[in-house]
Amino acid sequence: MSDPTGREAAQMSRRSAIGIGVGAVGLSAMRGAAHAEAPGGDSASVASVDVVVVGAGFAGLTAARALRAAGHSVVVLEADDRVGGRTKPGSIAGETVDLGGQWVGPAQDRLLALAREYGVAVYPQFTSGNNIVDLAGHRATYEGETPALGPMALAEFALVIGKFEALARQVPVLRPWEAPGVEAIDAQTMETWILANARSSAVRSAMRLLIRTLACAEAGEVSLLAMLAMASSAGGFNEMVSTRGGAQDAMLEGGVWQLAARMARELDPAVVLEAPVTAIAQDETGVSVWAGRRKWRGKYVIVTAPPSLAARIAYRPALPALRDGLMQRMPMGCVIKAHIAYARPFWRTQGLTGMVLSDSTEFGPWFDHSPVRGATGGLVGLFTGKSARRWAERSPQARRDQVLKDVAAYLGDEALKPIDYIEEVWAATTWQRGGYSSAPGPGVLSAFGPALREPVGRLHWAGTETAEAFSGYIEGAIRSGENSAQEVARRL
Amino acid sequence: MSDPTGREAAQMSRRSAIGIGVGAVGLSAMRGAAHAEAPGGDSASVASVDVVVVGAGFAGLTAARALRAAGHSVVVLEADDRVGGRTKPGSIAGETVDLGGQWVGPAQDRLLALAREYGVAVYPQFTSGNNIVDLAGHRATYEGETPALGPMALAEFALVIGKFEALARQVPVLRPWEAPGVEAIDAQTMETWILANARSSAVRSAMRLLIRTLACAEAGEVSLLAMLAMASSAGGFNEMVSTRGGAQDAMLEGGVWQLAARMARELDPAVVLEAPVTAIAQDETGVSVWAGRRKWRGKYVIVTAPPSLAARIAYRPALPALRDGLMQRMPMGCVIKAHIAYARPFWRTQGLTGMVLSDSTEFGPWFDHSPVRGATGGLVGLFTGKSARRWAERSPQARRDQVLKDVAAYLGDEALKPIDYIEEVWAATTWQRGGYSSAPGPGVLSAFGPALREPVGRLHWAGTETAEAFSGYIEGAIRSGENSAQEVARRL
Repeated sequence: MSDPTGREAAQMSRRSAIGIGVGAVGLSAMRGAAHAEAPGGDSASVASVDVVVVGAGFAGLTAARALRAAGHSVVVLEADDRVGGRTKPGSIAGETVDLGGQWVGPAQDRLLALAREYGVAVYPQFTSGNNIVDLAGHRATYEGETPALGPMALAEFALVIGKFEALARQVPVLRPWEAPGVEAIDAQTMETWILANARSSAVRSAMRLLIRTLACAEAGEVSLLAMLAMASSAGGFNEMVSTRGGAQDAMLEGGVWQLAARMARELDPAVVLEAPVTAIAQDETGVSVWAGRRKWRGKYVIVTAPPSLAARIAYRPALPALRDGLMQRMPMGCVIKAHIAYARPFWRTQGLTGMVLSDSTEFGPWFDHSPVRGATGGLVGLFTGKSARRWAERSPQARRDQVLKDVAAYLGDEALKPIDYIEEVWAATTWQRGGYSSAPGPGVLSAFGPALREPVGRLHWAGTETAEAFSGYIEGAIRSGENSAQEVARRL
Repeated sequence: MSDPTGREAAQMSRRSAIGIGVGAVGLSAMRGAAHAEAPGGDSASVASVDVVVVGAGFAGLTAARALRAAGHSVVVLEADDRVGGRTKPGSIAGETVDLGGQWVGPAQDRLLALAREYGVAVYPQFTSGNNIVDLAGHRATYEGETPALGPMALAEFALVIGKFEALARQVPVLRPWEAPGVEAIDAQTMETWILANARSSAVRSAMRLLIRTLACAEAGEVSLLAMLAMASSAGGFNEMVSTRGGAQDAMLEGGVWQLAARMARELDPAVVLEAPVTAIAQDETGVSVWAGRRKWRGKYVIVTAPPSLAARIAYRPALPALRDGLMQRMPMGCVIKAHIAYARPFWRTQGLTGMVLSDSTEFGPWFDHSPVRGATGGLVGLFTGKSARRWAERSPQARRDQVLKDVAAYLGDEALKPIDYIEEVWAATTWQRGGYSSAPGPGVLSAFGPALREPVGRLHWAGTETAEAFSGYIEGAIRSGENSAQEVARRL
């Protein structure tokens, strides 16, 4: 049986201490409504709701909010000791920042609407000055969105991106597996495509680095179809890699994680933390959902966990082969995110934006992330793919040293003297095991994709991987939550 | 606490009814030795052994047998209601056959030794007569191992296989990730390699069909490195695809599954069925292993479940990122196996072996599997990869109709009148979720491979995927079991 325990209370205080303020969570209100109507349960009493939502990230919270607004009762079961999923607050030099998902683009209307609703201000990514690019041994500075690759390479780069965009336009956003010639497209890696379509080492290197930064996977791991589908879903490759007007256009003051915390507070006490769902059983009248010995009963269940983690739940009856096969084949990307605080944004006085795109560092790319107010400076950056794997098991001190060394190589020795540092090794977190999302390998989307969104009896799927647009983004998680809530509401 | 229950007893009778005769299994003897020394356990008493083995397939049973022979106490926890893993008995026309792994090659010395030990006779695959090949619209018959592709295609086929074998020889059996140029090799699918190295449609088609039959995955799904490693591990591509002298050389009278049943009987009562392991925790003095509420305590644990199923156990502390990442990226292949019984082996009178290799059927390839004694005939064959996905969710009747239709197209209308039929949809079994093994996609083995065999504290890995030779075969499972037992015994 679920009960707010002393441990949960302690964690709530801890959360308040770092400024999240989710509020009291637990099952206090639900206990009043609980009744032991579920067959075969071994709990003394079973909480019963219309819809059980698995996961308190943006997808799950959005779905629960929408269902409740439509008059349905919900419970949101979260494995972790916090809400937000792949968004998470962290504290650095007195500021609260996003340790996970962070940026928002102008086309991401659901996320922007949510920020407006909760009165959280949006401010632009700092882009005044020169970016630095260092690819295939050629280092240069440039303004704006197009990396300075040298005139020849730049022309080829434009051509290659153009080819990719043209292919992406042929991939249906909702059903990438219905793209013309899909088998041949999905039978190759991005690396194979790059080798066949780019000749200069600078363009090949740029493409590999961009793919790795977008997918948190190497070009040699990820399917061409998966990357095309990602671009199609996000409005194009240029939109994905761009700052101004693109997916890295802006951020939320105090962090995007706040929106999840606010939704959870609204849903309180229907959000249950530290309730990792272990089993889901369906029968003719509803679903039973277990987190260890605790059990909930609902008419429907929405699983918002990413496929590779949803695979770790025991389903009764067993899932169809295609769905199980899909969940065996959608690994999370590999990523570590680091924030660095400095006494001042010293790169700005050198006319630099702080942004560096290099193929000769372990860490990177990184971006200016100085606080909106105050005089301090901040950078935020990533280890992705191969680098994330290499550095995930190293000591925090070793990682920090590498980050500072890499940054100093481009922004100067002042980079070696941070006033604070914070990081999140997403590849090693128990309940995410990677990020940002899943970029499957060849042969997966074309063959197993049809199982991605298809409900299985009373079981519906949500989460950014299932989004009808902006899959892989917070925006996609929100949209998937809305969508699954509509699907289920139609059946209630 | 674990107890032999009425349900278990009922299942034991059922097993005896189909002739497995594993004998009484349970914890009856262990209960005497149980003591509640484990910290934090919520069971009244906890069974304590030297080594907890997870999985009662050939790897787990071999490991347990070796450990016990060395004087150590063991318990083998099996999720399913039977032993044998990806081997399994089935009854057809009064004969007991293998619904899973079946063949044995002359180089598979551990499996052959086990058959000798238990007095199970080995008999050769029937190969007298003509095989039929039908690729790229060209149908022909041939004797022996080399498919009749037509003279031009045949020369190219030999060249392509030669190239592949040469590459495979450069892939170290134990450490494929150390092959020269490994990143480039692992950045492409088999399909990409086939397109680059074979020109004729017959050779391309032959390669695709052979890869699919070996890996239970399409050439467009599986990495070139994974296929090279598989060949390297099995003694070469030719050895893998050959009957006489190759991996399909012979079978065991009554089925290879018997060896698992015999090992389990020897280990009785240390084999616990229907005990799906849900969590494994390590501490300084040992390991705790839970199957739901039942708990076992050991000094070490050997997990023999295939990586994609081992991923579904909760580990405390959480596994290293590289190991978890690997388990997210080693999906099981997709396969359905079917046996058909006929009043007589009518193809033999037409001078045919019964073996058909065709790219224009859903089912196939299939082989003669007539009983050693008696006048009846038998065929055995597979749906693999794409076909297995397509047919896994269809009705048994629809599958059977398709199988008979496909067979009749090559062996004649007598094929439409079987006297019995039996099948196993491995892609849909709860505790295997596919077969024969895992053939990972690009970028997996090269990057995550080093975590495949590496113990994590007191946790060791076995299973055919980890074998130092014959990975993917029963032989590999046995070798991995022996190997893990030695690893652990050195620490006891």
